[in-house]
This record gives sequence, structure tokens and C-alpha cells, in this order.
Amino acid sequence: MNKGFLVTFEGGEGCGKSTQIKLFIKFLEEQKLNFILSREPGGCVLGEKIRAILLHSKEDMSALSEFFLFCANRAEHVKEVIKPALEEGKIVVIDRYYDSSLAYQGYAGNLDIKKLKNITAFATDNVVPDLTFLLDISYEEGFGRKAKDENLKNLDRIEQRDRAYHEKVRQGYLKLAKEEPNRFVVIDASKSLEEIHEEIIKIFLKRIKK
Amino acid sequence: MNKGFLVTFEGGEGCGKSTQIKLFIKFLEEQKLNFILSREPGGCVLGEKIRAILLHSKEDMSALSEFFLFCANRAEHVKEVIKPALEEGKIVVIDRYYDSSLAYQGYAGNLDIKKLKNITAFATDNVVPDLTFLLDISYEEGFGRKAKDENLKNLDRIEQRDRAYHEKVRQGYLKLAKEEPNRFVVIDASKSLEEIHEEIIKIFLKRIKK
Repeated sequence: MNKGFLVTFEGGEGCGKSTQIKLFIKFLEEQKLNFILSREPGGCVLGEKIRAILLHSKEDMSALSEFFLFCANRAEHVKEVIKPALEEGKIVVIDRYYDSSLAYQGYAGNLDIKKLKNITAFATDNVVPDLTFLLDISYEEGFGRKAKDENLKNLDRIEQRDRAYHEKVRQGYLKLAKEEPNRFVVIDASKSLEEIHEEIIKIFLKRIKK
Repeated sequence: MNKGFLVTFEGGEGCGKSTQIKLFIKFLEEQKLNFILSREPGGCVLGEKIRAILLHSKEDMSALSEFFLFCANRAEHVKEVIKPALEEGKIVVIDRYYDSSLAYQGYAGNLDIKKLKNITAFATDNVVPDLTFLLDISYEEGFGRKAKDENLKNLDRIEQRDRAYHEKVRQGYLKLAKEEPNRFVVIDASKSLEEIHEEIIKIFLKRIKK
């Protein structure tokens, strides 16, 4: 089927995902590997329009509407960006993919996970990651980092939600990882940048050789 | 359950839907009936943002992405507007609802109708119209009217599609109507404005009395 390799990065707020993706991309460049980096929400023209609605709307919206906006984004992103790159044999790295919707809108938004999974399979044409890094961190440590790094007033619409919401996101992610232990690698994101990066590279190299 | 009454108007381009809705609303006002009028895409703050993407984006998008954008719109529209009005016992009139997605994205966009129906039931929390008027018109007559009424250069992204697409929309609508003969009333939209309006009022009064 696909000749490429799909790696996704997942995790709650302040887990250090962006930093680790940067380090990972730098590694891919140094190794002269053929890759693309993308993100959700976003990743294509339609996706970036949807991203603006999802993250910066002033009005609140239901978890269900959020979920469907992500599906609209995802369907286009898979068709226009992810699948063509995989078919060309590229490594595709995505900053968040459907596990984010299952954890945020599903587990934290109290939607029916089984239904969301079925709809997701339809939206993504069954394009499943080969490897998913879940950067796991406690609420205190995650938001503690965010407070150091940036003005907390700049949090987006989803980041602004309360502690209970973000705890559910974390537990949701851990459940997903438990259900698919072959795809998920749970990383203790309280470790140092360097330790985490080394762990990621080690696992990636082992998996991609298979 | 719901004390109100949900009436939807459906049909292809140039079927005279907008005119008939205006006449119908005028009738409800004269009868001093308690109603609201809404539309899809649109109908709520999120919906109007999605409407702009759906109808006026310059980029094309897949039928699947369109469908999910409609679902996001619909989930919010049902929750924020349609259900509360029905619970207050109002007559709710909508210019297009989920049958449009089944006809346009489903039948004309070649998506799996059974899947779309399941997802729609989830998105709408099973809020089904009590009565659906399908204004049925041939492609020639529909676009002939549009050409008279307005500059065809002003057609939106979906209206601009080719004849084969719009023929499939029409046949899709007719299939839907056949499957739910109790809910759908198919109106020959080639008749005069007055004849159609009278037919609509007659059927509406009969149904709402039940």
C-alpha cells in the first residue's frame, strides 16, 4: 500500500510537542531523509481557514461541532497532502492528527468514542499513523511551562478550558495509547529535552527499519 | 417530545424555493402563528462562518469535506436554534436541512449514503423534519429561471457545477422522497407561483392539525 511512513505527535498543553517536533525535523534534515511536516488543525488551505474558526472564534461551540470541523479539515488534509506524500514514499510528520479529536472532543467533550472512531475512519479514508508519540505530562507541569514561556492571556479557545477538561484529555490519550500499544509510544514529557529527543530518535529508527 | 413543528424546504437550483418560503412566511405571519425562519448553511454564528467557506471559497474541496462542514454547521444549528424553538412549541421553517447534504454531497458527490445518514443522525441528535417540501424542477427550467433572474456570473461555488452534477442532485432528492413518503411532499415546481403556494398551504394545514 503506502510506501511512506506516517509519524504523529500528540499530547496536552505544555507537553513540549512543538520543541520535540523541531528537534525531530532537524534530525530528519541532517539524515537527508525525504519528509514533509504538517499540522492539524490546518495543513491545507481549507484547513487553515477551519483552524481560524476552531482556535480563535469568540463564540463557544459544542464538542460535536468542533469534531465535525476537524473532520472537514482532516478529509481534505488526508486527500490533498498526507496520502500523496505517503504514496511518494515520504516520511510524513504531523503535529496532531485524529487522536487529538478523540482525546479532546471525545473523552474531554464527553462524546461517544466508538462513533467518533467510525466517523474518523471514513473522514481519513483509513489512513492510520505508523507511529504516534504521546508526550504525557501532568496538568501542573504542562501549564507551568506555558506560564513560563508565554503570556497566558494568549491561550487559544481550547487551551483556555479548565483543569477538569485538560485532565480528561490526558486520561483519554492514555486510554487510546493502551488500546493501540503497537502504534503508540508514551513518553514521559517531564524528562529533559535531550532525553526525550534521544528516546524519540531511537524508537523512530527502530520502527522505520521494519 | 417536541411540541413544535419542523418544516423544511428542499430543491435544486432555480426551483423557486426562496420565493415559496417568503410566501409561506407571509402566510404564517397573517395567521399569527409562532414561528422562526432559518437556513443552512448558516442559521447561527458558526453556521454563517461555515457558509462563507462553503459557498465562496476560491479553492475547490471534496464532497466529503463539504459534508463535514455541513455537519459542523448542523450540530450547532440544531442545538442552539432548532431544538430550543421546537421545545417552545414553535413552527420552525428551514431553507435547506440535511436532505440537501444527502442529495448534493451524497448522491451528486458519490459518497456512501448509508454512512452519511448515520453521521447525520448523530450530528442532528435525530431531529427529523415533520414535513419536507421538495420543489422538483428540471435542470433546463431551473437554470433558465436563474438566467432570467440574475447574472449567472454570481452563481456560488456549488451552483457553478455542471449539468451532470445537478441532474444527480435532482434524482437523489427524488430517491429520498420515495424512501420517506410520509415526510416528503414532492411539488411540481414548474407550476405557477400561486398554484404552488396554495398546494403548500393546503398540505401544511392538514399536517399540522394531526
